[in-house]
Amino acid sequence: MNIPKTTRILGIDPGSRVTGFGVIDVCGREHFYVASGCIKTIPGDELAGRIAIICEHIGEIIDTYRPNHAAVEQVFVNVNPAATLMLGQARGAAIAALTMRGLPVYEYTALQVKQAVVGQGKAAKEQVQHMVVRMLGLSGTPQADAADGLAVALTHALRNHGLAAQLNPNGMQIKRGRFQG
Amino acid sequence: MNIPKTTRILGIDPGSRVTGFGVIDVCGREHFYVASGCIKTIPGDELAGRIAIICEHIGEIIDTYRPNHAAVEQVFVNVNPAATLMLGQARGAAIAALTMRGLPVYEYTALQVKQAVVGQGKAAKEQVQHMVVRMLGLSGTPQADAADGLAVALTHALRNHGLAAQLNPNGMQIKRGRFQG
Repeated sequence: MNIPKTTRILGIDPGSRVTGFGVIDVCGREHFYVASGCIKTIPGDELAGRIAIICEHIGEIIDTYRPNHAAVEQVFVNVNPAATLMLGQARGAAIAALTMRGLPVYEYTALQVKQAVVGQGKAAKEQVQHMVVRMLGLSGTPQADAADGLAVALTHALRNHGLAAQLNPNGMQIKRGRFQG
Repeated sequence: MNIPKTTRILGIDPGSRVTGFGVIDVCGREHFYVASGCIKTIPGDELAGRIAIICEHIGEIIDTYRPNHAAVEQVFVNVNPAATLMLGQARGAAIAALTMRGLPVYEYTALQVKQAVVGQGKAAKEQVQHMVVRMLGLSGTPQADAADGLAVALTHALRNHGLAAQLNPNGMQIKRGRFQG
């Protein structure tokens, strides 16, 4: 009997004040909600303290949910250079926390996320949230940053249907574009 | 007999391509060279790979030299927003690697480094290198990024003469601005 292997994806939407995250399970072409939320840093805090909070919480999420892959949204270059630098630092810290735990990190632009989840790159934020709710069969709408974390995790799943095959090269076969255990 | 305690400082000058580092020992008002060098990432590499290299090498430096404090230079906001974002990500990753190893992180602007090491904020890069060589009694001039790493470590030492007192609050006394063990 062919039982598709489950891949667990941690999606991260980095921000200088709020970092959204979402964890999903992918089994064949089905996606299941596991967890989501957001990591908030204290605005007045010094940078090292904010980075420590981001790293600590990402570490806790990895310890709790044990994902196989991480997907991180690429951030916009802001018109304000100081804001761009701050956002870059938060994003670099998040990726560092993921790579230091040995997680393979995949990056997706906001355009790729919208195209994968909604089907078109110019989709509004609400459309992304709506599709996240539908695709994962959620009973309520998650907070905006948490929804973005789930959306980037879904993007990774949708763009890599052969994902589980990579994780278990000996026991997997891809048949007609679907992976099977 | 009063023997001043030694504090070991790791100075980091973050960059998207080259991250300079310098390790010094501070004993009273004396500074001793321990190590310096630079971490180079592969320009064409994807971001997660570059961040992994930065984190891995900073981890190795910490394991090898066991510093008590880390000092990180604040980076310039570049005119190019994409370059600013990239630099921010590298800097965020470096600080993440330091905080995840439990090191207290102190930040200094380039102005503060120049003022501390050369005595004036408008000093040229060569003057900073020259003073690093003199203050640490080096027999040669270190590579530019390594010298910047040493300069930010020296800045932390020069601006915190009571450093060792903080590390060993029971055994230290500050007498006439000097700390003594």
